[in-house]
Amino acid sequence: MLNHQIQLVSRPQGEPTLDNFKLVELNIPALEDGQVLVRNHFLSLDPYMRGRMNDGKSYAQPQPLGQVMIGGTAGEVVQSRNKRFSVGDQVVGMAGWQEYQLVGAEERGVLQKVDTTHVPLSAYLGLVGMPGVTGWYGLNQIIKPKAGETVVVSAASGAVGSVVGQLAKARGARAVGLAGGADKCRYVVEELGFDACIDYKQHPDLRSLSAALKEACPAGIDGCFENVGGMILDAVMLRANAFSRIAICGMISGYSGEPIPMALPQLILTNRMKIEGFIVSEHMEVWPEALQELGGMVASGKLKYRESVAQGLAAAPEAFLGLLKGKNFGKQLVKLS
Amino acid sequence: MLNHQIQLVSRPQGEPTLDNFKLVELNIPALEDGQVLVRNHFLSLDPYMRGRMNDGKSYAQPQPLGQVMIGGTAGEVVQSRNKRFSVGDQVVGMAGWQEYQLVGAEERGVLQKVDTTHVPLSAYLGLVGMPGVTGWYGLNQIIKPKAGETVVVSAASGAVGSVVGQLAKARGARAVGLAGGADKCRYVVEELGFDACIDYKQHPDLRSLSAALKEACPAGIDGCFENVGGMILDAVMLRANAFSRIAICGMISGYSGEPIPMALPQLILTNRMKIEGFIVSEHMEVWPEALQELGGMVASGKLKYRESVAQGLAAAPEAFLGLLKGKNFGKQLVKLS
Repeated sequence: MLNHQIQLVSRPQGEPTLDNFKLVELNIPALEDGQVLVRNHFLSLDPYMRGRMNDGKSYAQPQPLGQVMIGGTAGEVVQSRNKRFSVGDQVVGMAGWQEYQLVGAEERGVLQKVDTTHVPLSAYLGLVGMPGVTGWYGLNQIIKPKAGETVVVSAASGAVGSVVGQLAKARGARAVGLAGGADKCRYVVEELGFDACIDYKQHPDLRSLSAALKEACPAGIDGCFENVGGMILDAVMLRANAFSRIAICGMISGYSGEPIPMALPQLILTNRMKIEGFIVSEHMEVWPEALQELGGMVASGKLKYRESVAQGLAAAPEAFLGLLKGKNFGKQLVKLS
Repeated sequence: MLNHQIQLVSRPQGEPTLDNFKLVELNIPALEDGQVLVRNHFLSLDPYMRGRMNDGKSYAQPQPLGQVMIGGTAGEVVQSRNKRFSVGDQVVGMAGWQEYQLVGAEERGVLQKVDTTHVPLSAYLGLVGMPGVTGWYGLNQIIKPKAGETVVVSAASGAVGSVVGQLAKARGARAVGLAGGADKCRYVVEELGFDACIDYKQHPDLRSLSAALKEACPAGIDGCFENVGGMILDAVMLRANAFSRIAICGMISGYSGEPIPMALPQLILTNRMKIEGFIVSEHMEVWPEALQELGGMVASGKLKYRESVAQGLAAAPEAFLGLLKGKNFGKQLVKLS
């Protein structure tokens, strides 16, 4: 029985390319006592993976070369010699970019059983998984919007951003998104229910983007969930109100080597702002509460989302490069079966 | 009877100059019922005044032209037709850059009586006044150092910085200062009791300053009280630990017009930092607790400080320009009598 996986074989110089990845075929050994074999149905692609491809100091260990790329997965138990798992169990894990995952008897906690009665399996990689909890944490633990305040969300049509805006609306705040292109902006307003969405591709400079934010946020900006950084963050800071809060979740525009300065840091003082970076995996204590709320909202249709699904493991590298350029529309997945 | 005051008569283009100020002589009218006349003994000079000289958007109204410059004062009641004040009462207020202050019957709360039995009058403009509470707030409400952590303080020999470092030491943290010149650094370590102090004038570029911080902070930086901004903030961020906190109190290097970018904002994310700007006058709820602790520590000699005292009102503009260039050593005052 064969497994296929995608390994990182070189580190990017500047922007990553398909050459950084390699598809590898491996044998799956017969199961030993206590082991479980999972067939992954979905692989999650996320911006944080770009940071892992570098070798420099970061909040996480670099992805080792010659090993399967890191990543969240959702699948089904297909063989089990472990009494805690049965064939047919739906599970999520961190198997990485591969079709099968062999879990040892001693590897406690790497597989989580999930209930797909009311929530689709793939949603556990999106709104009811790490991206959803990321949005939940930044909004509820850092931005803490009051009713009537204005919250800006970059990458608003993505898995994280769509959660932030919809939760902000549910808490009585005004939600303003930033997304790339008219289609995404229309989706953010019409389907996700944001009050406004700015197509940042129409605003190539700080002055123009700041003017668009002024129009979309007539009462200024009280909170910002920042997935992008760079000019978007600068423009938000120019429109920030006193005591505004910025949750820094991503700096996607800075991943490819060159640092992008913050143009006007004195605004932190003049606007008495709070800016906080966070990584959701360091706040496991909030996950149960967050997943319960998010799962309930997805099951009852109160939380809408969209998925971009690439077909087959071999399509993962190209889909990932597209994600870094904003080519996805909603949560980027790879369907493996 | 004559009063003298210094007015702002023009706004600076770039660096302020003596020409921006004018010494004006005024008559003091005879007291009406309910009025109090205060002879100011000390005028406080503080970096925030530079911001008020500009006309742009800031957290406070600009200082109006043709009116007495804003500023904290400490003095003595010399005439009173108000039963709440007696001749000889020691008081602090916000009279601005002038010798006398006539307080109307309706102006409740502009004068605070102070007890000079154990705390010198001038200290109420420094460690037991706004600068002291500023340091107290940033350290206790934002940085919140744990024992064994490292706290870096810029402008360490000044009124605010000296409080931050000494309070950090009292809480069991390692205190590392930045100051301009060998004399100030020696004072910060030998008299104020910091663990180390870096002479930033010896480190003209980011690489050099960052290396000095690495040596002075072998376990990295957990908290920073930032009075300066610019390259110092960049260097601190390069040495910041995970979950470090930066209290932004001043951006003195950016006041003179040109914004100074933050070089590496992505470190906010990779180090999961919290950066927060604050203005102590917006947190009046902490003042009683802070002043009680600071007054007690000054009275018992546990909190050390130094004053630079310019003689006479006419010397105030030059002393203020010197303060902006770091020529003062400790709290900058003007002695008016």
